[in-house]
Amino acid sequence: MIPRYSRPRMAAIWEPENRFRIWFEIEAHACDAQAELGVIPAEAARAVWERGRFEVDRIDEIERETRHDVIAFLTNLAEHVGPEARFVHQGMTSSDVLDTCLAVQLTQACDILIEDIDEVLAALRRRAIEHKHTVCIGRSHAIHAEPTTFGLKLAGHYAEFQRNRERMVAARREIATCAISGAVGTFANIDPRVEAHVAAKLGLEIEPVSTQVIPRDRHAMFFSVMGVVASGIERLAIEIRHLQRTEVREAEEYFAPGQKGSSAMPHKRNPVLTENLTGLARIIRAAVIPAHENVALWHERDISHSAVERVFGPDATIALDFALARTARVVDQLVVYPERMRANLETGGGIVHSQRVLLALTQKGASREDSYRLVQRNAMEAWHGRGQFLDLLKADAEVGRYLSPEEIAAQFDLGYHTRNVDTIFARVFGANEGRVT
Amino acid sequence: MIPRYSRPRMAAIWEPENRFRIWFEIEAHACDAQAELGVIPAEAARAVWERGRFEVDRIDEIERETRHDVIAFLTNLAEHVGPEARFVHQGMTSSDVLDTCLAVQLTQACDILIEDIDEVLAALRRRAIEHKHTVCIGRSHAIHAEPTTFGLKLAGHYAEFQRNRERMVAARREIATCAISGAVGTFANIDPRVEAHVAAKLGLEIEPVSTQVIPRDRHAMFFSVMGVVASGIERLAIEIRHLQRTEVREAEEYFAPGQKGSSAMPHKRNPVLTENLTGLARIIRAAVIPAHENVALWHERDISHSAVERVFGPDATIALDFALARTARVVDQLVVYPERMRANLETGGGIVHSQRVLLALTQKGASREDSYRLVQRNAMEAWHGRGQFLDLLKADAEVGRYLSPEEIAAQFDLGYHTRNVDTIFARVFGANEGRVT
Amino acid sequence: MIPRYSRPRMAAIWEPENRFRIWFEIEAHACDAQAELGVIPAEAARAVWERGRFEVDRIDEIERETRHDVIAFLTNLAEHVGPEARFVHQGMTSSDVLDTCLAVQLTQACDILIEDIDEVLAALRRRAIEHKHTVCIGRSHAIHAEPTTFGLKLAGHYAEFQRNRERMVAARREIATCAISGAVGTFANIDPRVEAHVAAKLGLEIEPVSTQVIPRDRHAMFFSVMGVVASGIERLAIEIRHLQRTEVREAEEYFAPGQKGSSAMPHKRNPVLTENLTGLARIIRAAVIPAHENVALWHERDISHSAVERVFGPDATIALDFALARTARVVDQLVVYPERMRANLETGGGIVHSQRVLLALTQKGASREDSYRLVQRNAMEAWHGRGQFLDLLKADAEVGRYLSPEEIAAQFDLGYHTRNVDTIFARVFGANEGRVT
Amino acid sequence: MIPRYSRPRMAAIWEPENRFRIWFEIEAHACDAQAELGVIPAEAARAVWERGRFEVDRIDEIERETRHDVIAFLTNLAEHVGPEARFVHQGMTSSDVLDTCLAVQLTQACDILIEDIDEVLAALRRRAIEHKHTVCIGRSHAIHAEPTTFGLKLAGHYAEFQRNRERMVAARREIATCAISGAVGTFANIDPRVEAHVAAKLGLEIEPVSTQVIPRDRHAMFFSVMGVVASGIERLAIEIRHLQRTEVREAEEYFAPGQKGSSAMPHKRNPVLTENLTGLARIIRAAVIPAHENVALWHERDISHSAVERVFGPDATIALDFALARTARVVDQLVVYPERMRANLETGGGIVHSQRVLLALTQKGASREDSYRLVQRNAMEAWHGRGQFLDLLKADAEVGRYLSPEEIAAQFDLGYHTRNVDTIFARVFGANEGRVT
Repeated sequence: MIPRYSRPRMAAIWEPENRFRIWFEIEAHACDAQAELGVIPAEAARAVWERGRFEVDRIDEIERETRHDVIAFLTNLAEHVGPEARFVHQGMTSSDVLDTCLAVQLTQACDILIEDIDEVLAALRRRAIEHKHTVCIGRSHAIHAEPTTFGLKLAGHYAEFQRNRERMVAARREIATCAISGAVGTFANIDPRVEAHVAAKLGLEIEPVSTQVIPRDRHAMFFSVMGVVASGIERLAIEIRHLQRTEVREAEEYFAPGQKGSSAMPHKRNPVLTENLTGLARIIRAAVIPAHENVALWHERDISHSAVERVFGPDATIALDFALARTARVVDQLVVYPERMRANLETGGGIVHSQRVLLALTQKGASREDSYRLVQRNAMEAWHGRGQFLDLLKADAEVGRYLSPEEIAAQFDLGYHTRNVDTIFARVFGANEGRVT
Repeated sequence: MIPRYSRPRMAAIWEPENRFRIWFEIEAHACDAQAELGVIPAEAARAVWERGRFEVDRIDEIERETRHDVIAFLTNLAEHVGPEARFVHQGMTSSDVLDTCLAVQLTQACDILIEDIDEVLAALRRRAIEHKHTVCIGRSHAIHAEPTTFGLKLAGHYAEFQRNRERMVAARREIATCAISGAVGTFANIDPRVEAHVAAKLGLEIEPVSTQVIPRDRHAMFFSVMGVVASGIERLAIEIRHLQRTEVREAEEYFAPGQKGSSAMPHKRNPVLTENLTGLARIIRAAVIPAHENVALWHERDISHSAVERVFGPDATIALDFALARTARVVDQLVVYPERMRANLETGGGIVHSQRVLLALTQKGASREDSYRLVQRNAMEAWHGRGQFLDLLKADAEVGRYLSPEEIAAQFDLGYHTRNVDTIFARVFGANEGRVT
Repeated sequence: MIPRYSRPRMAAIWEPENRFRIWFEIEAHACDAQAELGVIPAEAARAVWERGRFEVDRIDEIERETRHDVIAFLTNLAEHVGPEARFVHQGMTSSDVLDTCLAVQLTQACDILIEDIDEVLAALRRRAIEHKHTVCIGRSHAIHAEPTTFGLKLAGHYAEFQRNRERMVAARREIATCAISGAVGTFANIDPRVEAHVAAKLGLEIEPVSTQVIPRDRHAMFFSVMGVVASGIERLAIEIRHLQRTEVREAEEYFAPGQKGSSAMPHKRNPVLTENLTGLARIIRAAVIPAHENVALWHERDISHSAVERVFGPDATIALDFALARTARVVDQLVVYPERMRANLETGGGIVHSQRVLLALTQKGASREDSYRLVQRNAMEAWHGRGQFLDLLKADAEVGRYLSPEEIAAQFDLGYHTRNVDTIFARVFGANEGRVT
Repeated sequence: MIPRYSRPRMAAIWEPENRFRIWFEIEAHACDAQAELGVIPAEAARAVWERGRFEVDRIDEIERETRHDVIAFLTNLAEHVGPEARFVHQGMTSSDVLDTCLAVQLTQACDILIEDIDEVLAALRRRAIEHKHTVCIGRSHAIHAEPTTFGLKLAGHYAEFQRNRERMVAARREIATCAISGAVGTFANIDPRVEAHVAAKLGLEIEPVSTQVIPRDRHAMFFSVMGVVASGIERLAIEIRHLQRTEVREAEEYFAPGQKGSSAMPHKRNPVLTENLTGLARIIRAAVIPAHENVALWHERDISHSAVERVFGPDATIALDFALARTARVVDQLVVYPERMRANLETGGGIVHSQRVLLALTQKGASREDSYRLVQRNAMEAWHGRGQFLDLLKADAEVGRYLSPEEIAAQFDLGYHTRNVDTIFARVFGANEGRVT
């Protein structure tokens, strides 16, 4: 992933240093287990831990000759360990190291992503509670529908990111397995207890059946979940982009002093962060189908998945880490304009209350069809700017047959629309946030 | 989905009859709750259950005029229920009905898909146990690697389908929610207890925050899981296609008497079922990205997701149901040729035992590099048909410095490779299947 | 494709009747060529044309037994033709019939799609010329930027659909090839002149190398182009959805009398057609990757592509036909509100003219940095409603050092922004539309 | 893209140095045109060319403050050019620079990709002609069908890459456009002749309607074509992977001396290059849908496309360049085993000739159904190893009613299958290659 969308902690997971560190641990733990089983001398295992070292440059150098990265690593390791190095990797195959290492890297990545989601959740929660009662118009089809609150909007995104957190936790379980099963996964040359030992040391589960490789349906799920999280980011980003548009302007990304919006138009403050998040969502989702295509490896394994994972393993996790962090910051710093929300809500002369009037009419005995017709007639007038909806209704004789002017006016109460906000907040944030803010 | 890939039970879920039946139940249960709350008369709720009926053709007719399906349904319902019909749907919005109905349909679909997976599992289990000790060559990169058993191959697929079953169960939870929250999801016009009642009656959870619609991240996960299951089908299909190829012919799809393989070449028996499964996997996966794109609806909702779900809701579930059933049947009826497996295994004059020889050499004190060189030298001779690997090794003086002819021959024992099959089977099928077969 | 998104003419292409009709023509033309070459008797070829008939039901019946559609068709054909039928299909293989038939169907589909695009073009052209000088605000990042005209917006979409037309014409060429080359494509059993004859009769080119199948890179391109066209529909749909939103309301989909926007909120007029087009674009694009995955068939062919084409061949072309027709109608009937466009343009007190002021300042000798600072300072005040931009600039002493009040006011002329509209129109619609409207 | 899959020449296109170099040229050419039009002083234009310089580090430094890359570049440029720098970029907007620059970069990339394809074509042509008459079995469904030649296989890939070349040339035309049209694309502040001048200087066409940005349907096509090319690489890669599998071994990737195939199994020579190409195809295709999603920018433009292009612009072109070069090399160095091809062909005792026997039977008056039955009966016996197909046919009395033993034997001539190879080669490589080799 390009530096622009990379953060150091996530990027470090995919650096050679970290990869070889994990390889070393896998090999060294495996030696311990082999020594315990009496397969190799205990001194050999000790020697690996004591003298085992590697140099990234040296490994690269050897790989240029052998064209095989694990052999290059083992060769370099042997240069430090000495003759006992011949006991390293015994009975194992390259995939045992590579796939178990990838499992460790993905769990490391996952841990960061879960922390990232927690920051998104914290920001959403804080701002949701802050704006729990900030009334704004709810829109379906981008058309004014009925009032809601800005806090409720954010609570909906909070609930979605809670689900995303659970999915990410489940995805972590999916990919946190260890395979040390040798060529074609039969444990012919290595005792299954070696795998169990290494797994336990690395915090992984054993892979029930590895066919030399850890099966790629696990990774397909992992990338799918990243795609769903990215889509959740996109939903929030698009909400903010809409709210920031000139005609709506109910919220704005924080605009740093000194920041320039446009080289040509100095007044512009563009939602560039959330537009960027929209683009990043496309990038992260791009990895989903290749990950699915990786599942159907030939027989016990081929290596076609490798290029995909070398590229999209880092790229998707790094981009998602960046996107989540940006999302948290955007929400945290979002500039909210409650007065604009109120002003937009009142556009249209109160027709957002049309559904309540409709219900009041039916409750007074008008048929549903008649009620609909009466309300639509007056709503359309108000919509086209030919009067306030409330006034028009009061002046409509047919409406007057069912509702008095006072009864009509009573339907125009905003509090009516927000009276269940506490209930919904309690569902999302627990009982306390439902009751008190 | 075209009839060729449809099975009646799954297809019926997506028929208008089932959809309107669910709509009716949602409305009628909602009336019960509304009556219980005193919002509508108890007789109205009773009238709905007693006189409520609908006709698909009549609804279509009304929809052609109103261009709104829920209004058309309610109008038709009112034709049967009479004046009490005005209490139906009170405080609700179309999406309450549509999205809750989709949740019910998807859970119904999910139940069938889980049953389908169970049939795949049953077939895989039976055949895996049958061939637990049927030795065959394991292949990496489609090149002979080391021996495994055909049962072990199937056990790997079984383990994958077990995971797929769990994912499908989780996906069912994802989409099994009910939303009866009215316009923009504020419960302004309807008590949250109505939602709770309908949810309980339909076997669904309540949706914590619905913004008129049930959030589409749930459906994105559901379609993603279907994509992963389809990819698992593809992996199995490709294995069988490989095994059936003329040069391998270790297994074959069952070929019915009277079936013709080719209009031109009468001897041909083609793996057309598994090729078809490969294609179906592409079709099912095609729904994943559109489902992700559906997540970012505008504000409280737009209707762009609807077309995608109208098409891919049925298409993906129907295709996956068909594909799973076909997979189960292919596995169940697969013709296996153990003697061909053995013959293929022995091609190459025993070089599949090279890794064991390598280990034996290192254990006798040869360096890893020397061992590798010695084994490769002789393996390459055997590979090119210039002698049997065993004979070549025995004749190699440098090898002879470490291993006696008897020690070399001891590395050529097939039983060595299969001695941990019981352990792996126990991991997958439980302790009994591991121990006894 | 479901009936809701199907139009009869395109759907008919994919009906069995049309498919078997094309099969018949392929076989009958092939017989003519074979007779001409002296391979089969001339009377046989004549008999095929004279007595050749088929019944869809009968073919289905035979296929249920033989499980092979081409054999079923030939059997049914033989029932009508009699003994001469043994000369039919001689030297050919099923794929010769199937793939050449698909080529004919796709060219038929393509012809309709090109006509559809022509209708979109006609509607865009008419409305573009109508609104060539209808001034509205141009928006980048959904933030007001500088004035443009509504006609210019439509001209941009027109130019895109012109490109889409060219792409579709190129895609038609891609898939309009005929293969009658027999098993594995060697012409072992059939003279290449038969292929040339059938190709000429069907209006196709010969396929230079068919490996039993017509290579699927052609179809991958065809589906890719459909995806690009769908994305162009989406762009236009999203423009309209934005323009219709309550706060913008510069244009609206035509709303038929009697149409109901919402079961709950009678005032609503939602952009449901363009939201639907957005969803349809996702559906059409879904076929792109499966079509790419279809390219890599095994060796001379496998049948995995077939399911994908059986489903997405009809689905994507039918959905695109429907979407294009809907697009044409939406554009044709679009209700445009020039006065709203003008009102939105004037929101912000004239800061859309900030770039012109910036340029005027630099032309009077202010440095670019100073000019930017001066303009931004006043634009921000106006943006936050603390005065009209023009007044603020006039009152700014530092600005006054470079520009007189008259010079400032001269930058606020809308005509300045539209003076090159003719030039752009001439590029798109030709010289006449550029000059006169 | 990671270094492993990058080649320097393509990577350099995407380096900051090249990007800023192109920016400089755009600005400087624009100054020339502005000077020619009298908008800016001629000395200013000269000063830009004479003193214009930039430093990547300095631009980065400024961008960290302004958060706007074009402004940072212009500021750095001004540091060198001096006061005349205020005439640079006049009337232009950032997108004019960015999008025109991207067009130049993509045409540069395209030129390399076309060269790469030419190398693939050269390799395919050379090997196709070399193996024009190397007979091997053709396979449908991976089942032996009828004989073909290895040269014919390669000729089919050659024809596909010829099409890919044409597509790439067309894609180059798609993206080779220049936009210098100012904010929202109206040319309000810049004369269209500036655009025409810059376009001509850079070898681009003018963009008929740019809405500040060059429309993204062009890029969607470009990425789609890259996806199709990648799929063509995958098809060739999968062919080779199949041919290299142990049981087939008709061809092998070149294996360098010293290269190690497996850390555990020294005899292995794996088709790792073509497996890698299979994975790279997935990576390149991954960019297709994001590029389609980029089309529907909001109004005159948003910036969501930018992240996608920053990542996939380099990644997809670099990966495709690498993949094409690898493909050319794999084909060029492919080790072909004609004797294995012949041996595989003869497996099955001659049943590959079944279609010819079938035709001979029908020509002697047997009904198609009878012929099919007779051939299938004997083919199945041979298939199951119960005799040679030729012997079985001769011994079949019912066959003997139509064909003498000599007539049967005459159907077993391999030359029969290859007699049209010249004709096909002439189609692909021109008349000379058809006639003489």
